[in-house]
Formats: sequence, structure tokens, C-alpha cells
Amino acid sequence: MEDYRHGGFTLPGEAGYEQLTLELAEKWGADVIRDSDGTKLSPEIVKAGYRIYSTICIIREHNAFATAHPDTQQQCFLSSDAVTAAGDMVEIEPLAGYFEEQFQLNDTPEALAYWQVWDRTAGAEVPRDRWTYADGRITVRGCAPWHRYTASFLCWRIWEEINMYNHTTNHWTSEHLRQLDPRHPLAWAYLKDWLEKWCVENPQTNVIRLTSLFYNFVWIFGSDLRRRTRFVDWGSYDFTVSPAALDEFKKEYGYRLTAEDFIHQGLLQATHRPPTAHKRDYMDFIQRFVAAKARELVEIIHRHGKQAYVFYDDSWVGMEPYGKYFSSIGFDGLIKCVFSGFECRLCAGADVPVHELRFHPYLFPVGLGGLPTFMEGGHPEKDAMDYWLHVRRALARQCVDRIGLGGYLHLTQGFPAFTEAITRMGVQFRQLRALHAKGKPAALNIRVGVLHTWGSLRSWTLSGHFHETDGNILIHINEALSGLPVEVRFLSFEDVKAGALGEIDVLINAGRMGDAWSGGDAWRDPALAAEVTRFVHEGGSLIGAGEPTAAPGGDTVFALAHVLGVEMDDGRYACHMPWETQPETAPFAVPADALADKPGIRLTDPDTKVLDQGCAGPRLTLHEFGKGKAVYLSGFQYSPAAARMLLELLLYLTGKDAAEAGVCEDPRVEVAWFPASATLVMMNNAEAPVDAVVRCPAGERRVQLAPLEMQFCALEK
Amino acid sequence: MEDYRHGGFTLPGEAGYEQLTLELAEKWGADVIRDSDGTKLSPEIVKAGYRIYSTICIIREHNAFATAHPDTQQQCFLSSDAVTAAGDMVEIEPLAGYFEEQFQLNDTPEALAYWQVWDRTAGAEVPRDRWTYADGRITVRGCAPWHRYTASFLCWRIWEEINMYNHTTNHWTSEHLRQLDPRHPLAWAYLKDWLEKWCVENPQTNVIRLTSLFYNFVWIFGSDLRRRTRFVDWGSYDFTVSPAALDEFKKEYGYRLTAEDFIHQGLLQATHRPPTAHKRDYMDFIQRFVAAKARELVEIIHRHGKQAYVFYDDSWVGMEPYGKYFSSIGFDGLIKCVFSGFECRLCAGADVPVHELRFHPYLFPVGLGGLPTFMEGGHPEKDAMDYWLHVRRALARQCVDRIGLGGYLHLTQGFPAFTEAITRMGVQFRQLRALHAKGKPAALNIRVGVLHTWGSLRSWTLSGHFHETDGNILIHINEALSGLPVEVRFLSFEDVKAGALGEIDVLINAGRMGDAWSGGDAWRDPALAAEVTRFVHEGGSLIGAGEPTAAPGGDTVFALAHVLGVEMDDGRYACHMPWETQPETAPFAVPADALADKPGIRLTDPDTKVLDQGCAGPRLTLHEFGKGKAVYLSGFQYSPAAARMLLELLLYLTGKDAAEAGVCEDPRVEVAWFPASATLVMMNNAEAPVDAVVRCPAGERRVQLAPLEMQFCALEK
Repeated sequence: MEDYRHGGFTLPGEAGYEQLTLELAEKWGADVIRDSDGTKLSPEIVKAGYRIYSTICIIREHNAFATAHPDTQQQCFLSSDAVTAAGDMVEIEPLAGYFEEQFQLNDTPEALAYWQVWDRTAGAEVPRDRWTYADGRITVRGCAPWHRYTASFLCWRIWEEINMYNHTTNHWTSEHLRQLDPRHPLAWAYLKDWLEKWCVENPQTNVIRLTSLFYNFVWIFGSDLRRRTRFVDWGSYDFTVSPAALDEFKKEYGYRLTAEDFIHQGLLQATHRPPTAHKRDYMDFIQRFVAAKARELVEIIHRHGKQAYVFYDDSWVGMEPYGKYFSSIGFDGLIKCVFSGFECRLCAGADVPVHELRFHPYLFPVGLGGLPTFMEGGHPEKDAMDYWLHVRRALARQCVDRIGLGGYLHLTQGFPAFTEAITRMGVQFRQLRALHAKGKPAALNIRVGVLHTWGSLRSWTLSGHFHETDGNILIHINEALSGLPVEVRFLSFEDVKAGALGEIDVLINAGRMGDAWSGGDAWRDPALAAEVTRFVHEGGSLIGAGEPTAAPGGDTVFALAHVLGVEMDDGRYACHMPWETQPETAPFAVPADALADKPGIRLTDPDTKVLDQGCAGPRLTLHEFGKGKAVYLSGFQYSPAAARMLLELLLYLTGKDAAEAGVCEDPRVEVAWFPASATLVMMNNAEAPVDAVVRCPAGERRVQLAPLEMQFCALEK
Repeated sequence: MEDYRHGGFTLPGEAGYEQLTLELAEKWGADVIRDSDGTKLSPEIVKAGYRIYSTICIIREHNAFATAHPDTQQQCFLSSDAVTAAGDMVEIEPLAGYFEEQFQLNDTPEALAYWQVWDRTAGAEVPRDRWTYADGRITVRGCAPWHRYTASFLCWRIWEEINMYNHTTNHWTSEHLRQLDPRHPLAWAYLKDWLEKWCVENPQTNVIRLTSLFYNFVWIFGSDLRRRTRFVDWGSYDFTVSPAALDEFKKEYGYRLTAEDFIHQGLLQATHRPPTAHKRDYMDFIQRFVAAKARELVEIIHRHGKQAYVFYDDSWVGMEPYGKYFSSIGFDGLIKCVFSGFECRLCAGADVPVHELRFHPYLFPVGLGGLPTFMEGGHPEKDAMDYWLHVRRALARQCVDRIGLGGYLHLTQGFPAFTEAITRMGVQFRQLRALHAKGKPAALNIRVGVLHTWGSLRSWTLSGHFHETDGNILIHINEALSGLPVEVRFLSFEDVKAGALGEIDVLINAGRMGDAWSGGDAWRDPALAAEVTRFVHEGGSLIGAGEPTAAPGGDTVFALAHVLGVEMDDGRYACHMPWETQPETAPFAVPADALADKPGIRLTDPDTKVLDQGCAGPRLTLHEFGKGKAVYLSGFQYSPAAARMLLELLLYLTGKDAAEAGVCEDPRVEVAWFPASATLVMMNNAEAPVDAVVRCPAGERRVQLAPLEMQFCALEK
């Protein structure tokens, strides 16, 4: 019998709670103890025989240096709010409406050279000789009356955003932490030197846990509490910019980026929107920079005999684990905090030696939504279980090497149910890990391609956590896929045009018209539309969800309306009558809340089968096209039942038998079959006991599962 | 005491029911008897001393001529459905999927010269040397595989559409009627000659009631009963086209129109969508043609001592009563069938000597929706009352000269409640007419401008009846306005740029992004946006409903988001947080069903007041901008309560006192005050009695109204 009680677990230790630290380390089977943002490890803990992770946010906590060298701080472009010209002159206060503790104008000559003023009504830049800047104020002359004017400008970011968040949300009162730009030669020399010294001074540390790298995800605060967060995007590169970066870009690419390449009519370029060609160039430029600088840090860490793990959150911009340059950095491990299954897969699939998950809830009095977690009224064991239900099904498909927690360990006191829940999850994780070590779980021979603008760069994730992106259909689909026994790849439109569909059975495109997930203008490329048309006509399958393949400018809203068998009315069909629909019964269960009531969906072909119809029209359709099939989903909201529907849909499209990978007749139970161990892993997603038959290549078996139980069942070989 | 029992009433007579005809003529106070489509008048009726209207559909009922001269028939462009190229060749059957009894290919050399083949995937016309036509089939070679190809072609319309509708819907079995194109010299000579003879042969007729003119509204049938109507648009000019028209156009305008000017990616150009510049030219070209030809007919009629009234429905394309050339035709009267108040105003405001309404229901066994009217299960008196509730409030604002009915008079037998209802309506109409004759009703000094693409050309109506366009917010607003004591003008964007806002207090823009009512790309014209911005800033008011001023391409979706104080998220704000909303209580009643739950509406200014908030966000907002105000309505569904809300909104924006025009404290009652007669007209829209106070310039008065009652109350002078 293997030891499922120890190993692969990282415990957050806490000075002052040495006994608790060591007790829980034993109970949870920890082999590693770490510090957290706000906690320290005491000598007693450090010397207790565990491996030690030390958290470093490399660009933060150098306030003395930042104060002495303010031009080494990070920057960004912002756009002022528009000012309407009542006459031929307007005055603009660039930072009006922004949080004055986060931003400070950069009006140095090299920054001012990048400032712009725009007539947003006319969509035209105002010539430089028509505006002046003095004393924090821009004066524009020769305005067109009643046009709206904005200024685009550079500013310093004088408060590191995670620190700012903790102050403003959790009422921290300590000194505001600043952040350095590693592109500045002074700052970079200082940071490398600092890391060298840190390594020398901390011989106890085995692993430096870089809490990401250099540039925070973009988080722009406003001055008004009714809109404290003006903009937040976990994938934006807007916090990487500086005159130095722009000058370097010009040298490498031969053309100069302007403020408008970032400001983009004041909308910025969020990850959810397709990037301009310039922004794509810029992202690659930054990715190479981040990778090169990160490698220098890793080399220092390795030289001191330590390992470098990176925690993928917060300041991760440019180090995407599926980006072109990630593996060149040489990290020894990737740590990902997880609420969801897709995050497990994101971590598990990355090209790095060690994959570790940091579970939620974080050991903090309140959760991200501000609700109590480890305080009166909190139920951390329920929170943990909610997340575990998402995580375990993904781990059953693809496992990681380690799990762990973070935060203030003392907060667990008084929550024994939480302590027990984590103990159980640790055991189940190790059981899964042992099964995976003996051999992969059986999978259906279905290769799913998820198609969007970003392709593999944004494998599994969109931009941030599930709850930050849950207005997007695709994150729900990714979450469902994370636990299904199918192969999943993330394809860009360029991949498809280069022939990637040759290795795909079912292609999924899911998003809203114009967003990066649906694809926007990419669908006006005839080569793309033709290639997917060919793919389906020759026998492939297409699942479109929401507003798939949608782009303005064509004769249909959905570029592949002819393949999908449905089209969306954006108003153009005002006088065109739709085909009458004749709903049929779907050959599988369609959960009531899985789809969406979406107006304007109409058939392009009377033979399109309507398998589910809501009050606004078709919600689930099937269309045969050539030798292939296309399915349209009006929406997709993740639930275990919705995931099962997606599985049934994939089976229906491909003609496979679910039993090849193990399947339960009760759709509330998910199954993984590990042939090398002859073991069934069964996960009851229901809060009720289930008694049902499971089929797998080894035969049928009747099973009983307690509510929410995860059961491991070794069959006779 | 005036005689309110006789006059101004047109009765449909019916041969074989002479006694009934004369009885009802007496009962309803008719002074005119008319025939209808399908009925004839007998000598007994004709000689009974009434004036006689005779209905003529000039281009129809000439089948012998049409058969002898098939090239005099009317035509249109159609687009084939798209065919996907599986290789480098596709074959297209142009008419596949169209109703073969309505269309016949026109493959004469002069027509073929206008045919086109399109690669719709690439958005490019296929060069002429790459396709051939033979035996009703187009063969395209050198195709790009997996692209979609369509053919645009001319065809003859071999079945007059209203006759086709009656056959296919009401199971008529008579010969299919054809229709002649007055542009063809042979046809035109024939028609004029025919009319001359008709006038000679029908001395009894006082008024020729032209059931419109030449070109039917566009109604395209499909071969499949699951989509019998493929396209229907009461305002489209697509049935006016022919090679001869196109050649003439080329001569006049100096450039050649192509099939694509009509086909427009297969979407055609519906009235609900902004027209291209070419289509605008073409419409003016047709309007001049229709007016010139119509004048020739009117001259013939006048020469025979008869009058020419035109019934505005069906074949009215090009003779819009508010078009530039309508009054040049010289019609003696305009007859409009009415379901709604806006149709009364459309008729009443036209520049023509006599205005007549034909009431609904039409005397036919079933109504337009196919439900029973004058047959078992029908309640024609209730239908009549429903329409009257809409009509009377409009007539109280602006009266017509005559009313009447149409259809088969014998069907009224067995429906005495209907006969009584019409009698009452006739009396009330005459009372209103008499009041108007003495002097206009008092109005608030509020000048409302309704702003859309078409301006005055499409005053009051959009395209057809209310029930055909009730998915558009604007028709609901027009219907509400038709009974409010305010001045209403319809403005085009060109009018506004030319200074029309100088005579407007409140501007309304209501529609869906990209449609003709909201305005689409017109809003990207900085001159338009600036002018409306100026108007509000200097003290004007703007009401935007639905997706007002919306167009893609700008920095905001709503071009006037800064004026409205709200903006719509079309996905671009994925990472931009909205202002927190703080709903306030509106200073007037907001009926629960008047507005719409519209997702994506967000404030642009924290000071925008949210006066109604639904589950999807703000539904009614108020924004002060400069000296003016802007209101946003998420939707607008007509009801008497919604109309009252609109009135309150107009009062609120302009600071007027409703009592100037008469107002009831109970919002269910509408009031018109006729100062010259010192008479209050009160209309109870409630199905319950009302006891309430009415205020008017003559003072206050407590009134009691029965359910739905219209009460005339002469005050002491």
C-alpha cells in the first residue's frame, strides 16, 4: 500500500505559530513549508527538516531605491476622459478621474514626445502645434466646436497594484510599495545585485518562489469610489511600456509605436478583443524581453544552488506558460493558484519540471468577493469543497506534482472541518498522482480544437480566473473540457490556415461577435472560412457557441452560417422571414440552465435540426454539411450536467462509445478509467447518493457513491 | 344642434344585398358608396342618390394584354441562394427556392447584361468570362474551392402580389392576375387608353379610387411552405426595376446601376436599413417617374369630370404622401386604411384636398392574422373598438374629412354589435370633425423632432402597418406621439445639418444600431454629432431610445454617449468597469411594460440619473448636458400608459404645464381641449369607470367616464 498521507504538499508556515505549523505539516503530509505575502518563517520552522520556499516579488519592496531613482519606476499610457469643445479651445487635465495615488504624470521631454491629443468626434489626431502643455494641463486651440477631445499621455505608476489592492480593500496601512521597471539599466543592475545578496543571506531557502516577474496585469483605479476600478485585464501588456521600451521597439521593428497603439480610441486593447498587428508585434517584443530578463534571474538563483519556481499570477505579463519563450527561462517549477479545472490543466500541461497547485481558499479573513472565509460566518471547508469539485475532475485527466496552500496559517484555528477537508483532498490528490504515474487514464479518441485569436498562447485560460471572465461562453466550455476524456488543443486562426485541422476531429469556436474568442475580423479572411468549410464538408465537426465566426462586413453575420446551419440577425434581416422551426427531441439530456435564450438566431437551412428551442428561438441545433456536422449552442453555462451534455455532443458528432474511457449511466457521476492500474475513479457531482452502473473497457460495474464522493475502485485484473 | 349622424362616410355596397346596402347607408350616415376588391355595385345601388367611388388597380386585370405582350410585365432582381464550391466549378439554378408561380427568369440579352455572379466568401464579383448561362442554369468555372457563390439575375414577376396573397392565403382559385410595367411604352399606351374607355363607360362613378398606383411593395415568396414569405418590405423599390429603367437611369445620372445596387450581398435594401447613395438616387428617379405617370392618369380622370382619390396601400411605392413629388400628381383625395393612430396622422397631414380613413376590420371572414372576424368565433365589434381606441386620440389632435369601410357588406349580418359600434364611431368622428372645423385643439408649445434616415419622406410610418413593424421602438413612439398635444416633425440627418434644430425643442432618435431609424453610419459624420451636441448644450432636449445614435467605428458606440449620459457595451468594454448606478424615483409613473430589459447599458457620467432600473441595468436615465437635458429609454412599448409617460417626459424636459392643452389627473384618461368651442374631449383608455379631475385653461372640472368612453363636454363660456 502506497503512502497517500505524505508528500507533494506545500504548507504556509507562520512565525509565532510554530506548533500549529508543525502539527498541520504532519496532518496534511507537507514536505515543504513556505512563507506568504505578510508572513515570515521563524528559525524553529526553517530548521524542522522541511524544504523551504521563499516568496519574492522581485520588482517590489525597494522603496528607498525607487525614491532615490524615481525614473526607474514603471509607467503606462492613459487617455484622459473626453472634453467637449464649447468653443475653439479646450483645456484637458490629463489625470482627472484617475486615482492620484496610483498615477503621476510623466512630462519629461522623452515622454512628452509620445503624448497625443485627439479629436475623437472626427477620429483624427490634433496636430502637435495646436496644443500646449504647462503645469499639468493641456490647452488645445483651433478646436472644431462641439467635438470631443482627449489627451493620451504617459504616467508613472507610483503604487504597485497588488499592494494598492490590499490597502484599499483590506485596509492595510503600511507604506505604499513601489515597483521598478527592469528595463531601466540602473534598476536592473540594482535588482540583480539585490537577488545575489538575498541568496547569500538566505541559505535555508531551497526554492525561490517568484511571485511572478516584472509587470503586473493591468489594473487602473479611478478617483471616484463609484468606479474605483476603471479597467482591469489580466492579460494586457499596457503596464510594460516606457519611452525606453518604445525606442527599443523602433530599433528592432523599424517602425515607431504611438500612444494610439495602446490607447486605441480610449478603449485600450483588452485580451478579450483581437489585437492590432502593432500590438501583436509589441507583445512578442515584450515576451522576449521578459524571458531574457527572467533567465538572468534564474541563473543567479541556480548559481546559489537554489531552484526557481514561478507563481503564475499578478505580475506574469509576458511569461505565458504556453508562450514561445517560456521554456527558455529555465524555471524549475510552475505554481498556479486554482479555483477551477481549466487552471489545473493550464498548469499541468506546461513545459516545466514541477507543476504545483495552490488551492483556494487562500488563508485570509475574507475571500476575493469580500465575503467572510476564515472569520465568523465563514465556511472555508465548503469553499474548499466547491473548488475541489472543479479541480479533481481535471486532475483525473492530467495530474500535477504538488499541491499546497497560502496565507496566514493561524486563521485555520477554529475551523477543524477545513483542516479535515484539506487532509482528505491531499490523500485523494496523491491517489490520483500515483495512478497517473502508472499510466494515463483512458481517453476517447476525440481530438478537440478550441479556435480563437490567441491560440495556444492562451491555452485553457482567457484572462484571469473563472469568476473574472464568466461572462464569456468559452471559459465555461474550457472548464467543461478540462474534465472530459478527450484531447484538447488550442488553435489560432493562423494555425488553422497552416493546416492544423488535419489533427482535429471537433473544432470549437465560442464567443461574442468581435471578441478575441469568436475572432472578429479574422473571419472575413476567405482562406479561414474556406478551410473550416472544407474541414466540415470532408467529415469534420464544428461546434459554434454564442456568436461563433461572427464578423461585420460579410453577406452573413456568421462567416460559417452555411456550415452551422444557423445565422444571427443583427438587424440586417429586418424584412427577411426566418425558416419556421420544428423542434425535435435531442438524443441526450439538455440541462435547462446550460444554454441561453438568445434572440435573433435563425436557420439558414430548413434541414437544420432544432434540438432545443427557448422562448427567443433555437438554442441547440444540428446541421449536416457534406460528410460532416455542425452544432450551434446559443450559450453554455458550466455545470457538471452541462459538461455531460458537451461530452454527449462530442460522442454524437464522432460516433465514439463513452465506455472506452469509462462512463456512468447516471450523468451526475464522472468517471476516469486507468487501465494500467485497472482502477476506476468515480466522482459524484451530486449532493445526493448515487447507485448506478459504470461501463468501462473492463466491463460493467454497479457502484454506490455517497454525496459528492470521489471513489477509487481497483477492478480485478 | 349639428347633424352628427350623416355625412363623411363611405360605405362598401354589394350587389345582391341592395336592401342591406341602403339600410346600412342610412344607419351609418353614408354619403358615398364604393365597390371593393371582389364586390360590384348593382344599378339599384348606384342610382340610390349616393356619390359613387369605383376602385381601380390600374396595372392589374389586363391578363390578355400581358399574355400577348409578356415583356410588358414587371420585373425584379433576385439573388440565388449561395452554392458552396466543393471543387473549381459550381452550378447555380438561379430560381431554386423561389416560388415558381411568382417568378420567371428574364434571360433576354438586355437582362442578361445585368446578371452577375459573386464569390460571397471573398466579397468579389466573378469576371463575366468565368461563367456561362444555358437552359436556366449558370456554370461558374475557376472557382476558389470552399467559397460560396451566388448569382444575381433579373426575372419577370408573373403574378400580381396582392392577388397571389389572396389566392395562397384565402384559397382563391380564379385566374392569376398579372401586372404591367407602366415604363413599357406599349403597356403605358394601353393603360391610358383603357382608363379613357373606362371613364367613358362608367358615367355613374364620381370618384375613381386608385388602389395605389403601379408598383407593389416588395413581397417575395419562396417555394417551401416553411418559409412562404422570404422577404416583405412595404417601402422597398425593388419591384420597380427593369433594363429599361436602368438604361434610363444611366442617361439621367451618368452612371450605371448594377445588380449589386439592388441585391446588396443578397440582403436587398430594406426600408429599415439606411440606403446606399446609389439607392437614394434610384428612389428619387422612381419617385419622379411615378409622379409623372400618375399625373397623366389624374388628367384623364379629371378630363372626364371625375375625381381621383388614391388609396395608400399595396402598390404605393414612389408616391409617398410626404415625398417631394406627391402634391404634383394632383390627387383629389388620399384614403388610408388605419389600425393605428400614426396612420391617421399620416393621412391627415398630407397635402391633398380630401383625407379619408378606411377603418378596420375589413369586412372579410378572417383578419390579416388568419383569425376569424366575420365568421363564427369572431368579435368584429371588439376588433373595431381596439382600433378605434388608437384612432380617436389621433383624430382628436388632427382630424380627417371622411371615414369608411371596405369589403363584403353582407358579412355584417348577424353581427349587430358591430353595426352599432360603427354607428357610434361615425357620430364621434363627426363630433370631432365639427370641433376641428371651429378651431384647433390647444397644444403645448413643444416642438418634437423625430430624427431618422428618411426624415419627412417616412413621416409617421416606418414601412407598413404597426403590426408589421412593431419590433421597432420608433413605431411605438410614433403611435404615442400621434395622440399627444405636441407638434411633431420628421427630420432627416441632412435636415439637421441644414439647421432644422432651430425649430425643435425635443429631438427623438429611436432605433437599433445600424438601422434606418437609429441612423447607422450617419452618426459617424462629425457634423451631425456636433450639431446635436450643440443643440442640447445650448438648452435643447434629446430623447434616445433603444440604440440611439449608434454606429460602429467611433470611440463610443453611441455617437452621442457624452450627451445621453449612457453608452452601450457591444463587447468593447470587456475590461472597463461601469459606473455604479444609484436608481432614483422618477418624477412620473413608469409603466412596468413600457421599457425593455436591455443588457449592456452603462453610464458615461456618474451624474447621469437612473430613473428606472431593470434586471439588466438602467432603463430610463436623465442626463444634464450644458443647458439641456438628455433622456435615455431602453425601449418603448406603446400603451396609453406609455404614451402618458412620454407626455410627462416631454413636460419634464420643457417645463411646460400640461393643463395648457387639457390634462386629467388620472393617467388613463386623455384629454383634448378645443378653445374655440370651449369643449373638452375626454377619452378613457381604461376598461373601468374613472372619476377624476381634468384641468384645462378654462379651469378644473371633475368628470365621470364610463369604461373606454369618449366624452364631449362643452364648458360654459
